[in-house]
Amino acid sequence: MAGDGSDQRALQYEQTLMYGRYTQELGVYAKEEAARLRESGQRRSVSDRSRTLDLLEYDKGRCAKCRRAGYPYVLEAPAHDFISVCTVRCQKFLISRVGEDWIFLILLGLLMALVSWVVDFCIAICLQAQKWMYGGLDSNVFLQYLAWVTYPVVLITFSAGFTQILAPQAVGSGIPEMKTILRGVVLKEYLTFKTFVAKVIGLTCALGSGMPLGKEGPFVHIASLCAALLSKFMSLFGGIYENESRNIEMLAAACAVGVGCCFAAPIGGVLFSIEVTSTFFAVRNYWRGFFAATFSAFIFRVLAVWNRDEETITALFKTRFRLDFPFDLQELPAFAVIGIASGFGGALFVYLNRLIVQFIRKQKAINRFLMKKRLLYPALVTLLVSTLTFPPGFGQFMAGKLTQKESLVTLLDNRTWAKQGIAEEFDYIGHSQAWKHPQVNVFVTLVLFIVMKFWMSALATTIPVPCGAFMPVFVIGAAFGRLVGESMAAWFPDGINTDGTIYPIVPGGYAVVGAAALSGAVTHTVSTAVIVFELTGQISHILPVMIAVILANAVAQSLQPSLYDSIIRIKKLPYLPELGWGHHEKYNIRVEDIMVRDVRYITLNCCYRDLHNVLLTGHLKTLALVESAESMILLGSIERAQLQSLLSQQLGRPRRLEYIRERALAEKKRMSVVSNPGSEDGSQRVSQEVRFQISTEESTFSPVRPVPQKPLKPALKRSSVVERPTEIPTSPHDNSGIALKNLFCASPDAEGLEDDGDVEDDMTIREIAEWEEMQLDEQVNFNNCKIDPAPFQLVERTSLHKTHTIFSLLGLDHAYVTSIGRLIGVVSLKELRKAIEGSVTVKGVKVRPPLASFRDSGTSSSENEATELHKLWDRHKSMSLPREHTPSESDEKSQ
Amino acid sequence: MAGDGSDQRALQYEQTLMYGRYTQELGVYAKEEAARLRESGQRRSVSDRSRTLDLLEYDKGRCAKCRRAGYPYVLEAPAHDFISVCTVRCQKFLISRVGEDWIFLILLGLLMALVSWVVDFCIAICLQAQKWMYGGLDSNVFLQYLAWVTYPVVLITFSAGFTQILAPQAVGSGIPEMKTILRGVVLKEYLTFKTFVAKVIGLTCALGSGMPLGKEGPFVHIASLCAALLSKFMSLFGGIYENESRNIEMLAAACAVGVGCCFAAPIGGVLFSIEVTSTFFAVRNYWRGFFAATFSAFIFRVLAVWNRDEETITALFKTRFRLDFPFDLQELPAFAVIGIASGFGGALFVYLNRLIVQFIRKQKAINRFLMKKRLLYPALVTLLVSTLTFPPGFGQFMAGKLTQKESLVTLLDNRTWAKQGIAEEFDYIGHSQAWKHPQVNVFVTLVLFIVMKFWMSALATTIPVPCGAFMPVFVIGAAFGRLVGESMAAWFPDGINTDGTIYPIVPGGYAVVGAAALSGAVTHTVSTAVIVFELTGQISHILPVMIAVILANAVAQSLQPSLYDSIIRIKKLPYLPELGWGHHEKYNIRVEDIMVRDVRYITLNCCYRDLHNVLLTGHLKTLALVESAESMILLGSIERAQLQSLLSQQLGRPRRLEYIRERALAEKKRMSVVSNPGSEDGSQRVSQEVRFQISTEESTFSPVRPVPQKPLKPALKRSSVVERPTEIPTSPHDNSGIALKNLFCASPDAEGLEDDGDVEDDMTIREIAEWEEMQLDEQVNFNNCKIDPAPFQLVERTSLHKTHTIFSLLGLDHAYVTSIGRLIGVVSLKELRKAIEGSVTVKGVKVRPPLASFRDSGTSSSENEATELHKLWDRHKSMSLPREHTPSESDEKSQ
Repeated sequence: MAGDGSDQRALQYEQTLMYGRYTQELGVYAKEEAARLRESGQRRSVSDRSRTLDLLEYDKGRCAKCRRAGYPYVLEAPAHDFISVCTVRCQKFLISRVGEDWIFLILLGLLMALVSWVVDFCIAICLQAQKWMYGGLDSNVFLQYLAWVTYPVVLITFSAGFTQILAPQAVGSGIPEMKTILRGVVLKEYLTFKTFVAKVIGLTCALGSGMPLGKEGPFVHIASLCAALLSKFMSLFGGIYENESRNIEMLAAACAVGVGCCFAAPIGGVLFSIEVTSTFFAVRNYWRGFFAATFSAFIFRVLAVWNRDEETITALFKTRFRLDFPFDLQELPAFAVIGIASGFGGALFVYLNRLIVQFIRKQKAINRFLMKKRLLYPALVTLLVSTLTFPPGFGQFMAGKLTQKESLVTLLDNRTWAKQGIAEEFDYIGHSQAWKHPQVNVFVTLVLFIVMKFWMSALATTIPVPCGAFMPVFVIGAAFGRLVGESMAAWFPDGINTDGTIYPIVPGGYAVVGAAALSGAVTHTVSTAVIVFELTGQISHILPVMIAVILANAVAQSLQPSLYDSIIRIKKLPYLPELGWGHHEKYNIRVEDIMVRDVRYITLNCCYRDLHNVLLTGHLKTLALVESAESMILLGSIERAQLQSLLSQQLGRPRRLEYIRERALAEKKRMSVVSNPGSEDGSQRVSQEVRFQISTEESTFSPVRPVPQKPLKPALKRSSVVERPTEIPTSPHDNSGIALKNLFCASPDAEGLEDDGDVEDDMTIREIAEWEEMQLDEQVNFNNCKIDPAPFQLVERTSLHKTHTIFSLLGLDHAYVTSIGRLIGVVSLKELRKAIEGSVTVKGVKVRPPLASFRDSGTSSSENEATELHKLWDRHKSMSLPREHTPSESDEKSQ
Repeated sequence: MAGDGSDQRALQYEQTLMYGRYTQELGVYAKEEAARLRESGQRRSVSDRSRTLDLLEYDKGRCAKCRRAGYPYVLEAPAHDFISVCTVRCQKFLISRVGEDWIFLILLGLLMALVSWVVDFCIAICLQAQKWMYGGLDSNVFLQYLAWVTYPVVLITFSAGFTQILAPQAVGSGIPEMKTILRGVVLKEYLTFKTFVAKVIGLTCALGSGMPLGKEGPFVHIASLCAALLSKFMSLFGGIYENESRNIEMLAAACAVGVGCCFAAPIGGVLFSIEVTSTFFAVRNYWRGFFAATFSAFIFRVLAVWNRDEETITALFKTRFRLDFPFDLQELPAFAVIGIASGFGGALFVYLNRLIVQFIRKQKAINRFLMKKRLLYPALVTLLVSTLTFPPGFGQFMAGKLTQKESLVTLLDNRTWAKQGIAEEFDYIGHSQAWKHPQVNVFVTLVLFIVMKFWMSALATTIPVPCGAFMPVFVIGAAFGRLVGESMAAWFPDGINTDGTIYPIVPGGYAVVGAAALSGAVTHTVSTAVIVFELTGQISHILPVMIAVILANAVAQSLQPSLYDSIIRIKKLPYLPELGWGHHEKYNIRVEDIMVRDVRYITLNCCYRDLHNVLLTGHLKTLALVESAESMILLGSIERAQLQSLLSQQLGRPRRLEYIRERALAEKKRMSVVSNPGSEDGSQRVSQEVRFQISTEESTFSPVRPVPQKPLKPALKRSSVVERPTEIPTSPHDNSGIALKNLFCASPDAEGLEDDGDVEDDMTIREIAEWEEMQLDEQVNFNNCKIDPAPFQLVERTSLHKTHTIFSLLGLDHAYVTSIGRLIGVVSLKELRKAIEGSVTVKGVKVRPPLASFRDSGTSSSENEATELHKLWDRHKSMSLPREHTPSESDEKSQ
């Protein structure tokens, strides 16, 4: 079963060339995973609950003790006994109490700091090795070229191959997936140990190659992996580590840690992770992020000090701009220009990145060829990029020999290149030299650097290795800022200020502004400003940076989705798009405009035939339970799978065997007491009685646990409602039924496996059909069925804005629309997504979509949902043995 | 009516000595206000809707145009006509589209920057005036003392008096109120123009007095006032400025602007406002805050540049610490000590502040005396504080002659005082001299400063003037940090580092850390760290600051609520307390443990008598509507006021007059056709018919608007559900009814005002009672009643954690607990608050309250709710004329 499951998992994930694509609707998959997870956690949670009770008892005990202390004459227990019990219990209490959040966050921070430091160290060694090789071969340009090119190609190819083999989910940034997970969708395979190993090693190799790739997205993913694994590990020692809400909270903190220890930027890390992954942020989680990220950043920097890289803890890319007069007021328009241009640039980057992916996906021939030779694409891209950056070749015009880190350091330099006069007391003149070409102006070098790196980064981030795009974009932004700054410095050599004192323009400040603006535009975040301050260790340019970042965001957000949202759409992850900036028609669209009025429902007194018909025709994951077709009063919602299991129980082989047994018994009885009048009536009564007995017996080994009358949690979290949706078809107990076959296409014929062989299944197909017809006319007994008694309800007048808020706040999947208790419609994520993307008409008018330029690229998801049933059939078919088809069967099936 | 309303408002707010206290349950009040607001906005919203339709039509028009452009042969309209129409429509479009958020936020930022600058300017002048007076009188110490003391006493007294007269709601910080408002409670009087004027002028005078008061809390309030007023102003020009969700979003942005332009700290402002006011933060609002706060901070600083105060835009309290080696790793324990000590200090401050308020409240005699002479308390406190700071007196030992700003500047100085050797090139040596007393060590001065300022600030913030506590706490923290720093510098005169290079310790850095830690501890925020960086313009101490702030928060949060939460409790504002840090029993308490099982409900087919009884016995604000007492299927919830209006309609005078008219008519008919058999039957039929006609007629001028069948928005926002709950008693149409009198204690006898004088009310009391008995037996007609058809539902197994999340996310007031559609209980804020504060027992065990130390001080709110009905009676009595009481009435009343 477990093996089957993992096979199936592998099947669901289509390994396309660049990003993986999901063929299965991820929601369905996630629910299956949640069900499996829940099942495996069943035993543990029982023990956990007993632990909790233990603790509560301890509390009670302590209270009792206190009470006794108040009335000393009732104290009768020996003191030493008391103390030893107290010690044990206190210990227990401490473990469960203190061991909760603090220790977890500290461990997470420590772990991530170590990972970050080790990864950084390995990357530095890799890059040094390349430099050493390149430097050692300076006698022969061809050999030099070979060394320069082969090294990254090998590393990238290894990284791609390794990731592909070990865990294809480790490919890419990881932020889009974390965003989806934090919305409440369970993507369990994203948080496994395999993925962790693949991501860490793949990332190290990819960045060690010197390609324009970033590490901040993967670090978010790695931190989340750490948190998930640590949580699993800690749950061995008890505590509340299985709690679902808590896990989500911890993952949110982990995202902050990821960014925080990547840039040694705790505040920026927390803010960036909030902006990038959350829709609604619980302020009570705030401290978790800060705590863990600060600890992590602290350890990360302390490791550098201990390693004698630094004298004390300082910023990663320390700048030394003057403090007394950082910039002139009249320079602000230039900063604003940087912001606006970065906004366009950011949108272009996102567009370019998506264009490349879509172009290669569309070219069927290329795609097919590259899919066969999976590693060819990474190798080719790497070859192209490294060829162009080869320092003696074209690279000399674009500072090709500098690594990402070195370029950033030189770009943030506080000297002015354009004037080339003032030499200050800086010791990394060597690196700055790379920008000065004897024949070519520094402006040309900068422009070439920006243009080349721009498309190279967009291309490189499509390689299927673990990589992000933040750092390359950051460097490009810095280069752009430096370009503007140098131009300003050349234009106003003595500064703009007119007050007599000469304050020359600092192009490094422009570079800082540009870096923040461009990375903010690509990711649609404002907190890049904070990251920049923490990276450079100076906050003097706060106003220019903020102005530029906000302008860049304004421009970029109105043109394109963020890079992460773009990848979410490319990967077709289940995610609700954001409402745009101030599109006020959102307040005017009502639920009644977008809801589906033709709701599939079942009534409380329906018979199995109705159930059968509803399951055959509908395709929603949950069905509404109403009181009656006339009153339409909504009582709750039932999972489709629950209904299928009800139906399969009713038509299942065990029941049929029981029926045969009864029939035989009745036959025997009738034979013996054939003269007794009214026996027909009596036997029927007996049969009725026995049937009830059977049905309760049956419930003990049916997949639905016998919790009658006990309601479940409401549909506030997807994973909490949806339980084992596919278990029923794979269970060995539901193998029968002609009518059932209509649902599952081919029924498993595992009769040989049955152990209750005391009765022979001698019914003919006709008899079975008759029996099933009889069974279908019985009224449904909902006692063993899990009903969500409080599905979320809306009313017709709820605005789209509010609906979106509620859906994203509560992570809803669907909500019923009621009018005074009467069910009148249903809204699901699909309708909502459509409405937001603009394909809904309000009062006959087409509302302009906020992201119109993007809508066409994301194919509609309705197709997926419509084929869900067929998929269920197919899967079932592949897992069970084929059975001979009778004409009546195929007739019914063709219906 | 309007006058009545404002009178009533004044009555509800009990002007206690320090903080005002609400005698009316604020929820009720807020709902009334919401209803009034809604009514006044009725006409406007109609025009708004027509505008919207206009816009949509425009969109359609444009679409049509585009289509026409695609098929040019259908183009028939003359071009110039087209252009003019287009111009007009484009203009309209631009106004409504662009005019939305950007312009609003820019205007808000601009306005607040101006306000902030003007207030700062006035404060500076006030402080200068005091210095000038004090300096000019240096010949006579007594005169000097008089001048030193009289000036602040006069200013504070004026401020207190002015605020009290104009708008008592302007007293205090404003952050607690904003927190409550952002949770969804409408406190409308907090956002009026009067309050704005009172707050600005009161704040300026209060701060101008030189007392240890802050301005950041009031600025949050002022910014929110600006936003609310601006929103009202903008709505004159159309747009969507009435939208409720939008207003909340704008208020959240305004809070950020308030902090941002107060400290010129846009990032810190946004973060601080989020931490302080929100429970769940919508990330899509993030940019609003940043945009407005940045713009505001920018303008605020630009004004300073234009005023020639500064040469360019820099930080407010610029520091000049060395960048290359800001601190040594081995200094970190000292920073941690500052953090932990600040945590304890912060908790102590909150406790002390509350203690002072409660002490004075409890001393009945003092309280009564001070209540009579309202301005005496502020004057006395000011006298005490200013006497103690008198520079030639005790003030010489605590740098008394420095203003808050000057002390902060000197405390953040990067020279070391303890060594007293190194004089650097700073020009404000004059201020630093204040710390150096010829006889007394600088350490003693610092300790005295800290101790004196500590209790002075805690005392001063209880004065009923507009003031905050952030800045005084910030200064005390800086002094504490400086104390630790100076001690370290004295202990390690050559720095700690052992590598040969001497890096002396920078006590100014410690001051920065201390300031952030103490203010973080008092407010329970982490973002004070960011504020500190923005204030000082240096981020080099990021790690020490973060470590200290987090430690301070950890300590303070486990000891005391934040200052703002403390004030919320003192003022008894309706607010849901936070869940504590990682109290995992929250996950184990279920709704079934805390819900009220004895739910008041009404059935769909109940008669008016049931309604009457339910209204008499219950005290909840909403009642559940179930299908029948047997099925208990929840159909919706109805406001108490709605039911009261139903009842008063049924028993009202108009109906009775109609009845009399009909009776007279029937009498007449019977007189004329006395011989006709079956006339009794016929007349009854007629009467039936007429009555129906009347009841529909009546609905047109009944306060319940005739929207039959049209459901309302669900109970997601308090203000949206609750409509005009007290209008019904004040309406002139419900003046009658013995049974009704049981609800409203005394019925208004405005018979003379009635204009339908064609029928004489000749019924005797007995007849009326009989008629009413008859009426009460009729079945309730819910057609004209507003039913919330989708009240929020929970199930028994929902955990307390989740319930709290849902309540705070959606701003719920109550939620019904259902089991498969059946109503089984109800949870309201009260139960939830009790459960969180620990007075609930789970499985018979008392759960330890997370804030046990605090629980006793906040009195339970159940008393308030129980007396709600009586209050309704009393208010009704006070507003209507007295009427003679019959024995039967008082009998029924005593029931």
